[in-house]
Amino acid sequence: MPERFGSVILPELELRSGKVLKEAGVAYSVNGTPKPDGSNVVVVCHSLTNSHHIAGEPAPGLPGAWWDAVVRPGGVLDTDKLCVVCCNNLCSPYGSSAPTNVEPGTGSTWGMRFPVLDPSDVALSQKKALEAIGIERVAGVIGGSLGGMIALEWVARFAGCLDFAVILAAPLRLYPQAIAYNGVQRHAITSDPDWRDGNYYPGQGPVKGLSNARMLAMITYRSEESFKKRHMRESSNIDEWDGYFDVESYLMHHGKLLTQRFDANCYLYLTKMMDLHDLAQGRADVEAAFESMRKKNLLAVGINTDILFPPWQVEEVAEAAKDAGVYAAYREVKSDAGHDAFLLESEQVSGIMKEFFDSIGFSAR
Amino acid sequence: MPERFGSVILPELELRSGKVLKEAGVAYSVNGTPKPDGSNVVVVCHSLTNSHHIAGEPAPGLPGAWWDAVVRPGGVLDTDKLCVVCCNNLCSPYGSSAPTNVEPGTGSTWGMRFPVLDPSDVALSQKKALEAIGIERVAGVIGGSLGGMIALEWVARFAGCLDFAVILAAPLRLYPQAIAYNGVQRHAITSDPDWRDGNYYPGQGPVKGLSNARMLAMITYRSEESFKKRHMRESSNIDEWDGYFDVESYLMHHGKLLTQRFDANCYLYLTKMMDLHDLAQGRADVEAAFESMRKKNLLAVGINTDILFPPWQVEEVAEAAKDAGVYAAYREVKSDAGHDAFLLESEQVSGIMKEFFDSIGFSAR
Repeated sequence: MPERFGSVILPELELRSGKVLKEAGVAYSVNGTPKPDGSNVVVVCHSLTNSHHIAGEPAPGLPGAWWDAVVRPGGVLDTDKLCVVCCNNLCSPYGSSAPTNVEPGTGSTWGMRFPVLDPSDVALSQKKALEAIGIERVAGVIGGSLGGMIALEWVARFAGCLDFAVILAAPLRLYPQAIAYNGVQRHAITSDPDWRDGNYYPGQGPVKGLSNARMLAMITYRSEESFKKRHMRESSNIDEWDGYFDVESYLMHHGKLLTQRFDANCYLYLTKMMDLHDLAQGRADVEAAFESMRKKNLLAVGINTDILFPPWQVEEVAEAAKDAGVYAAYREVKSDAGHDAFLLESEQVSGIMKEFFDSIGFSAR
Repeated sequence: MPERFGSVILPELELRSGKVLKEAGVAYSVNGTPKPDGSNVVVVCHSLTNSHHIAGEPAPGLPGAWWDAVVRPGGVLDTDKLCVVCCNNLCSPYGSSAPTNVEPGTGSTWGMRFPVLDPSDVALSQKKALEAIGIERVAGVIGGSLGGMIALEWVARFAGCLDFAVILAAPLRLYPQAIAYNGVQRHAITSDPDWRDGNYYPGQGPVKGLSNARMLAMITYRSEESFKKRHMRESSNIDEWDGYFDVESYLMHHGKLLTQRFDANCYLYLTKMMDLHDLAQGRADVEAAFESMRKKNLLAVGINTDILFPPWQVEEVAEAAKDAGVYAAYREVKSDAGHDAFLLESEQVSGIMKEFFDSIGFSAR
């Protein structure tokens, strides 16, 4: 069965900041058929610039499917037997409520009046969206990068409704170096005069600032090793100002691509959301976040060359969970690809997840 | 004797690109008194945004002395006995020829018509400047970061006129991740509409772009550890858009400081100069660059937490030199400070240099 799309509107979403987001829209995709008891349902949380379009044929208005190799008939998340649900993150420009939408009751675009959200708010929106479509319980939750942070908030808030969690390349909290990278990216956007305090017309936004932000982000998604392998010092006409090293052209290309499919205000909100990730926030400590997950299963998967969320930060997730009584394990993807290995090394990631599912007796039940 | 300043004009400087820079000005400082045979002269090469003002009292128009702890009476570079000469790098806005100067014979500012230079060109300008003030031979050359790259070109081109070299936190060549960081910084500057293709009036340049570039650079000069120690997740009013994490404010502060003392076009040229650093360029291989240094002494000093020029890249300098028959050693500064430890950890750096000088019998002769 092909991927189906849908969306729900939540009348009121109470945010951790104390604010309320009214008429919160949540777009989602479903791959496979849910069993009534939810025992074959897996929630997948997507990363910063991906969407809920996770598998299958191109979908109009959405970027390409990002987890085709994993979510497919016969894949580790076997859609012939499992049901994979993926919600578009709030603040993302792909269908859920975001700065690009009209503020309910005003007729004007939210822009920077949209409330600041954190991963906990997003997890809540997804839980409520699933309830709205009749799914009260799920087998587990899986997420990578920002999706891993949202998945961790699923664990912290809704462990009672799930059995396992897989956290890929995500930390317990944003450490200041990652905040610094995000901060410089936001600064690039807000410094662009075309940003106009967020009040730009669609298509006339801060293209150069967003492009610059993406260029920096791409460095943190790759690694020294991957750049060496790919580009070394290849260049053309480098003794002149119109010459470039290949690695610069590569980054500019990726910067441009993002500006063709992403909104700058959304980018600001989503990087801020990431910065606000802190599993201890609003709890006694980080272990308290894992309390309801006791005697359930958690797998944390780091990447040896990740410079954005170095392996020790991901191992820390497993350690903190263990300390709280969770059956937690840490595994590491060995790859030159850097942070994006959680997307690029689907064979290794599949193998690690399969081993985990086997060990906890979860299969396409 | 206090630091003295001077400058020379070189009628013609032949660049590696084949171009000629006419009337190349080189500003310099002298700390101590040179012996006629040059045996007590040490050339120090400065880094990206520093100047030739290396020690002592504040000097008008120049940033603060950056190596006071090392270059002083009684210091490792004891100015009571040694003579330390430091030239302002070409392309730097502090007195040597740069895009901020008037192009000879035209009456108009060079701007982006200034030729692209590499560290080899800068080394040549410094050697010629020393000759112009009567210094034909020197004991050794020392440099950190970009200064280390220039010092390596001293080694490659003028080893016959020196006995030792100390290379701090600099690689054999720029690897593509470092080029990527520089490329994004240049993109931030050239994307700023106030850059105007480099044709801005002094004081009306791309302040936001230069500030953004410096913010990113500061991340690469620090380390995960130093950010954790200093800032962790400290913040104020972070649930709102006018709130910041401390690490963001820290970066913005440093971004602003640089815009008050540095020129954007110069920044473009100097980061490009760094990217062009490749000791093998124009030579059979990297070992060929060390040929005339055979049986002379070289010390390479890396920093364990350097993310800009990771320790393996600096160790590679010593290895390549050894392979070419140089008496080369590698030492590592242990510090949480990251790349800037070559400036910040003056006690460790002094200790390592003292040990090296003792081992090769170089003292305040």
